[in-house]
Amino acid sequence: MRSRLRCAGLLVQEGDFVLLYFNDRRWYVVRARRGARYSFNEGVISADEIIGRAYGESLKTHIGVECRIVKPTLCDIVYNAFKRRTQVIYPKDAALIILKAGIGPGSRVVEAGTGSGFLTAILAYAVRPTGTVYTYEVRSEFLELAKANVAALGVDSFVVFKNKDVREGIDEREVDAVVLDLADPWEVVGHAHASLRSGGVLACFVPTVNQLEKVVESARGAGFVMVEAEELLLRKYKVSRGETRPEMRMVGHTGYLVFARKP
Amino acid sequence: MRSRLRCAGLLVQEGDFVLLYFNDRRWYVVRARRGARYSFNEGVISADEIIGRAYGESLKTHIGVECRIVKPTLCDIVYNAFKRRTQVIYPKDAALIILKAGIGPGSRVVEAGTGSGFLTAILAYAVRPTGTVYTYEVRSEFLELAKANVAALGVDSFVVFKNKDVREGIDEREVDAVVLDLADPWEVVGHAHASLRSGGVLACFVPTVNQLEKVVESARGAGFVMVEAEELLLRKYKVSRGETRPEMRMVGHTGYLVFARKP
Amino acid sequence: MRSRLRCAGLLVQEGDFVLLYFNDRRWYVVRARRGARYSFNEGVISADEIIGRAYGESLKTHIGVECRIVKPTLCDIVYNAFKRRTQVIYPKDAALIILKAGIGPGSRVVEAGTGSGFLTAILAYAVRPTGTVYTYEVRSEFLELAKANVAALGVDSFVVFKNKDVREGIDEREVDAVVLDLADPWEVVGHAHASLRSGGVLACFVPTVNQLEKVVESARGAGFVMVEAEELLLRKYKVSRGETRPEMRMVGHTGYLVFARKP
Amino acid sequence: MRSRLRCAGLLVQEGDFVLLYFNDRRWYVVRARRGARYSFNEGVISADEIIGRAYGESLKTHIGVECRIVKPTLCDIVYNAFKRRTQVIYPKDAALIILKAGIGPGSRVVEAGTGSGFLTAILAYAVRPTGTVYTYEVRSEFLELAKANVAALGVDSFVVFKNKDVREGIDEREVDAVVLDLADPWEVVGHAHASLRSGGVLACFVPTVNQLEKVVESARGAGFVMVEAEELLLRKYKVSRGETRPEMRMVGHTGYLVFARKP
Repeated sequence: MRSRLRCAGLLVQEGDFVLLYFNDRRWYVVRARRGARYSFNEGVISADEIIGRAYGESLKTHIGVECRIVKPTLCDIVYNAFKRRTQVIYPKDAALIILKAGIGPGSRVVEAGTGSGFLTAILAYAVRPTGTVYTYEVRSEFLELAKANVAALGVDSFVVFKNKDVREGIDEREVDAVVLDLADPWEVVGHAHASLRSGGVLACFVPTVNQLEKVVESARGAGFVMVEAEELLLRKYKVSRGETRPEMRMVGHTGYLVFARKP
Repeated sequence: MRSRLRCAGLLVQEGDFVLLYFNDRRWYVVRARRGARYSFNEGVISADEIIGRAYGESLKTHIGVECRIVKPTLCDIVYNAFKRRTQVIYPKDAALIILKAGIGPGSRVVEAGTGSGFLTAILAYAVRPTGTVYTYEVRSEFLELAKANVAALGVDSFVVFKNKDVREGIDEREVDAVVLDLADPWEVVGHAHASLRSGGVLACFVPTVNQLEKVVESARGAGFVMVEAEELLLRKYKVSRGETRPEMRMVGHTGYLVFARKP
Repeated sequence: MRSRLRCAGLLVQEGDFVLLYFNDRRWYVVRARRGARYSFNEGVISADEIIGRAYGESLKTHIGVECRIVKPTLCDIVYNAFKRRTQVIYPKDAALIILKAGIGPGSRVVEAGTGSGFLTAILAYAVRPTGTVYTYEVRSEFLELAKANVAALGVDSFVVFKNKDVREGIDEREVDAVVLDLADPWEVVGHAHASLRSGGVLACFVPTVNQLEKVVESARGAGFVMVEAEELLLRKYKVSRGETRPEMRMVGHTGYLVFARKP
Repeated sequence: MRSRLRCAGLLVQEGDFVLLYFNDRRWYVVRARRGARYSFNEGVISADEIIGRAYGESLKTHIGVECRIVKPTLCDIVYNAFKRRTQVIYPKDAALIILKAGIGPGSRVVEAGTGSGFLTAILAYAVRPTGTVYTYEVRSEFLELAKANVAALGVDSFVVFKNKDVREGIDEREVDAVVLDLADPWEVVGHAHASLRSGGVLACFVPTVNQLEKVVESARGAGFVMVEAEELLLRKYKVSRGETRPEMRMVGHTGYLVFARKP
């Protein structure tokens, strides 16, 4: 399988995601599909002009505005080209979940719920080429959306999509990590415990303090140890010589993270 | 190669890192080496009692205090069993660098400086089994320490250690990411640009606002685009029913992160 | 003098500021002036209907929407009824300046620059009835705006407005505090030192890290001691049973505060 | 009455609080009492050497270490010379309560509980010379401590100390503000409503999210409007040329603030 994420060569191929960079405020991530046309404020570009060009080359829109063809990163694609119908996890939270849950190449990870598949894709990217993400979603329309997103990224072969209510149980055993981004994770904490191998990690993302309290309590009650609760605040800076300061607007909250260990 | 990070079986083997869990405040990560003895407040345990036991089993110290043998995560090992002689990167920062730089299985990453090898190990873990981390460190005593740490984790085959001043140049070309944790990253930004493939990511970690300003300016000057500057604040919570609140003490600052893209 | 800030009686009087409360999202602060009419989404109310009514009473707009007449606080008036033509200080920052600079009834305070007079008004309110705020502003159009704002609040008798470039010197001696909200406070730090009494406090508000560094250095150089630099982050919460969490949007930065002492 | 807070003249008088400044890390606030001797790491100073000296003068300890006699601010005295037997409010929180509750000269304020009297003193300082703080404390030993602290500051004539359980009711009517720093403020919210004048402000400080939720709900239930919940994070900076950064250690939490209005 040729992932959309690796430069197989230096040339844009049909199906690749491409970042069209006009300037630091204006750039777009599109998927190069024969026949497609992309309209921006800066003018129109057709996919046929992009396919076969080398990454790093320049291009002009029909009104002559120049842009560069840049190979996008995982985050560029997921956060700019994926379709979303749900709240999606922020990179800061996804990143810490992966590191603290010990998720890496070869990991077997259970995720619920799938939602729009943003975290699914990020997890799948991390567990390649020998790991698997088992993702549960009860709403089939979300699962279909997630499948399409994950397939577009080219990492669908590392994901098992399950249209199932995870509150009824997790099928997999001896998994390395269970990641829950659900409204009621405490309903699943017992199943997570049964599913995890010894030493495996439960990671939960919840938006409210009430969920935080409930999921921590239920994790302790289910036999998890080393239960940690935390949140990340990301502060962006506007940097220029002599005028450096944090940005005025900030995302003040995404959610709380809970990590726990099956002993 | 058998990594220390995967359960080859369910039994502790010679050379494995093991987390000995007494309670949520008292747990230790040790490396199981025949003949070794570990002394804790809770008593003494010998490695020979641990080796061959199944993960998840219990054990008693010589004074009868019980503990569980838990398979540690990457973070458990790196932050509790690695030796350090330098400031080391925090998990929150390492995690975001990996995700935002698009680092994953197969990535070719340049890192400088190596320091105690904490980030080296985390990067190596992420790029397995086909990627490589090229890490530069001018002080040979740190490089030796890092080698020992990374080898203990069992991921040294994914790392090329280079005892070289990275300010003199980066040897590798067409790399996916360059990660700089240096006092003067602006001296290396030009080399990073030369080393990166089109679309590759430069990630820098710097503790002061002055370094932040200088590295952002030099990155822009060197031809990088989409330069972002940010910091992460991690806030821990003390969670118990009816008494949930953030912890009183907090790490108020680790450093600033800069991400930039070669177009 | 009858301040607009005290209930002389229970009845709204000509010239009073009044908070018209429709609901938690819709409320307005207006000044009751004979003949004035106020148009809101909820309909029109005339000042003549308000004047003479008791605080706490209800009122209807011409289309029948009910509101309550509420006595506004200092902050309600300053932040909702004052006109602004400049960046204005946030309550969190103004509050800490007042407390840490030891400003209270009877204090003699120098302020520069006046700007729209928000901080001037808050300082004047705090130093009543025996203190004085000496406020410097080089741009006469701002000084006039500030005068109008402060006079509307009824605390103008505690303020001396000076249309003067404070970089040329501070006229007052033995003052208790000097508060600088200027682009280049380091130009004034020496004058502040000359103006302050022994033990007096210099307080500066600056938006950028570069100004922060410069003003701290210049304060130390001018003979100030106990120089402190800090910033306040205000995080708002959305509270409702079972769904309590911080607000998603947050003001990520206003500015840095510097406090220093003349020994 | 001669307050300890104003320089009646330039000379230290019996009973004054004095800040003895050795350097930015070493300074002490003591009360000048005939016959008293103060022992520091830097040596011994007797009160008799201080009394009668001018503020700003230098002095030597018995081992010859020099210090300056500095007039302390309100915060210097309260946070360095007051005795404490309870958790005390932080300046950032006290300051915002005062400003947002509209507390200033002439305000009539109810406070509960008194605790060690830190907030009582700060409130009393702000309401001088015509306002009053009515402070309730059920534990008489705390009330006595608070009385001693407030009297030492010289603002006791603006405080009415009440050894009474505020949950049984507030005696005062038509007050401008009620400030609650209690474990169970929801028990008092109804009394606060009865006690406040129209437009008066309820301000509560609570450490946990559970208290936050309960007090907000009870305030809404008691008829308060414009209920706001927030918290302040204070971040200190280490500033020096070319090495400016936030401090590594930070107070990550003090408590949540709730403000509400009686319509």
